[in-house]
Amino acid sequence: MTIFKPINENEVMGKVKEVFDDIKTTRKIEDVPNFWKYIANDPDTLERTWSSMKQVMKKGALDEMTKELIYVAVSVTNGCEYCIRSHSAAAMKKGATKEMLSEMIAVTGMANEANRLVEGYQVELDNKFK
Amino acid sequence: MTIFKPINENEVMGKVKEVFDDIKTTRKIEDVPNFWKYIANDPDTLERTWSSMKQVMKKGALDEMTKELIYVAVSVTNGCEYCIRSHSAAAMKKGATKEMLSEMIAVTGMANEANRLVEGYQVELDNKFK
Amino acid sequence: MTIFKPINENEVMGKVKEVFDDIKTTRKIEDVPNFWKYIANDPDTLERTWSSMKQVMKKGALDEMTKELIYVAVSVTNGCEYCIRSHSAAAMKKGATKEMLSEMIAVTGMANEANRLVEGYQVELDNKFK
Amino acid sequence: MTIFKPINENEVMGKVKEVFDDIKTTRKIEDVPNFWKYIANDPDTLERTWSSMKQVMKKGALDEMTKELIYVAVSVTNGCEYCIRSHSAAAMKKGATKEMLSEMIAVTGMANEANRLVEGYQVELDNKFK
Amino acid sequence: MTIFKPINENEVMGKVKEVFDDIKTTRKIEDVPNFWKYIANDPDTLERTWSSMKQVMKKGALDEMTKELIYVAVSVTNGCEYCIRSHSAAAMKKGATKEMLSEMIAVTGMANEANRLVEGYQVELDNKFK
Amino acid sequence: MTIFKPINENEVMGKVKEVFDDIKTTRKIEDVPNFWKYIANDPDTLERTWSSMKQVMKKGALDEMTKELIYVAVSVTNGCEYCIRSHSAAAMKKGATKEMLSEMIAVTGMANEANRLVEGYQVELDNKFK
Repeated sequence: MTIFKPINENEVMGKVKEVFDDIKTTRKIEDVPNFWKYIANDPDTLERTWSSMKQVMKKGALDEMTKELIYVAVSVTNGCEYCIRSHSAAAMKKGATKEMLSEMIAVTGMANEANRLVEGYQVELDNKFK
Repeated sequence: MTIFKPINENEVMGKVKEVFDDIKTTRKIEDVPNFWKYIANDPDTLERTWSSMKQVMKKGALDEMTKELIYVAVSVTNGCEYCIRSHSAAAMKKGATKEMLSEMIAVTGMANEANRLVEGYQVELDNKFK
Repeated sequence: MTIFKPINENEVMGKVKEVFDDIKTTRKIEDVPNFWKYIANDPDTLERTWSSMKQVMKKGALDEMTKELIYVAVSVTNGCEYCIRSHSAAAMKKGATKEMLSEMIAVTGMANEANRLVEGYQVELDNKFK
Repeated sequence: MTIFKPINENEVMGKVKEVFDDIKTTRKIEDVPNFWKYIANDPDTLERTWSSMKQVMKKGALDEMTKELIYVAVSVTNGCEYCIRSHSAAAMKKGATKEMLSEMIAVTGMANEANRLVEGYQVELDNKFK
Repeated sequence: MTIFKPINENEVMGKVKEVFDDIKTTRKIEDVPNFWKYIANDPDTLERTWSSMKQVMKKGALDEMTKELIYVAVSVTNGCEYCIRSHSAAAMKKGATKEMLSEMIAVTGMANEANRLVEGYQVELDNKFK
Repeated sequence: MTIFKPINENEVMGKVKEVFDDIKTTRKIEDVPNFWKYIANDPDTLERTWSSMKQVMKKGALDEMTKELIYVAVSVTNGCEYCIRSHSAAAMKKGATKEMLSEMIAVTGMANEANRLVEGYQVELDNKFK
């Protein structure tokens, strides 16, 4: 028994249909990914999250590929398989190579290690960072 | 009472002195940051971590600024104040603007939120990601 | 090869049997859930955890449903699938609707995002919170 | 040296001023809390986050106090001091007593413990949760 | 304003006094550490946590020093300053040297790094671990 | 579609072959575990990680079994299934019994719980730990 099931994209209306259509148009894809189909159980969350995702992930001072790599680094730190797989694919679609993904993973590993060395030794802030 | 104290850079010899000198030369700084002074309590960890940090953070398929931004995104996710402050400064030294840092933080926030929506709804992998 | 296997509820005696019986009586269920069968590998942990769980999750200043929702919010943050699935079901048994679960997930996502905005910007405590 | 400083509420204009005014009106407070002043460094993030926060935390299937308690439980799990202090205060403003806060903390501790027992023993999903 | 204040050990009675006395006797210390004084705001949590802590941390198949080192490794991973400082001191009281603490921190850093390499590359279980 | 696939140990040359051979010799095993086959996609990361792992996990002030237990405790806290399964097996190979693993899990659960009680009550450092 699973509590939430993905919302069938052929049966949606109103606000949910509008968001689903915008996802397919914006991303140039034919099927709505499962993430959006599941959160469509809560139309307000669907609309808010899609609108936020578009704003946050679009080209700004940082390009879209860099943003996807940062997104994956966070998801790796949190251990979210779905997020790692879908946004690694998104990063490649935006131009990331396997070498770039490997380097992002190496940096993510290094930061996770060094974060704990800092905690373990209870390193004090240098004066210049205060 | 604190268990570990920073190692005074004027009193070091041998392996620790070599690493401290290399840090100052490579980073073009006059003082060794506290992080390295604390982990110098364990010379093997100092040497290994410095050598790894240099390899991982140097320009490769990704440039140094992007790597610093990824490093900060991980540190923000883990809530490590020292790491956030020191590597945000490092990112700026490598060319990051406040706008870039703000966008990195926004992506980090968004990914942390979406990771939990995925867990909360127990979203299944799309077939194309299996 | 898995190291720990669930303890068969038909073969238990003594302290483990007593806890298993109490679980079935208290929860009004016919089978002991896997969580308890696995931690029964360590009878002291089984007894202590069951006794703590009963005390912590029972109606007090907060009702049982609210406690289950809080439990799931933590499990979502940690990404523990078993815990999310079993306690989401427990929340529904105590009266939670899908709408309530969806709102709990939305709050959990929002808090995870805002926690990182606070870290990223290194927000200082307002005077009134000091 | 800190990179981001709080935006002075007497010097804001346009979108930032509108959000600051709405925060003070909606929350019935005289000063804008530091969280909003810091993220105002990025007006888009300020506007998006305030709008999301209002939507997510308002009374729905769950009441506002319960939502604040869930928010604090997540912040405790992530160890975000600012978030714990400000939203514990918000929960009390919405009617939470110290007893309720204590029980929320106890549930948060219990869930964090049990999540790890599940991982440590690698507990398999019961058939009914599949 | 802080919501919870430490309970004064000269003003306690009943269950709280009993636990406070047992803490001082068992640990052979003259003052009750702040951790116990704060959670004494909720006498049930105080009693349950003290009783669990005594059971879990006492010599069993593992000696007390090893248990303290494991406790610190978890606290370093979670970034809990109070827990790191108090249990590092406890580990030393049970015989841990600075070298042991340094090695524990190194292992903790390494595991945190390797955990993320596993997630980043989405490493599949070897057949022998299934 | 998975982005990274394990590197076939019969087709490797140069640096990767050397590391693979050293893994098999050092660990006295006939097959290279998947972890190393996946990170071999990035030969620099493979070489650096294997060299670090050997240094960090070898007998020093702490014995190898204790180090493996600490490694698993961290992996349980992070919820990394691969890491838990492979290093629990490694701990047993180094002499850990099921009782020891159970006690390590119990300590890990306890520390995760107490870390959150500290955060929830915002426990201040005792003077002696400052």
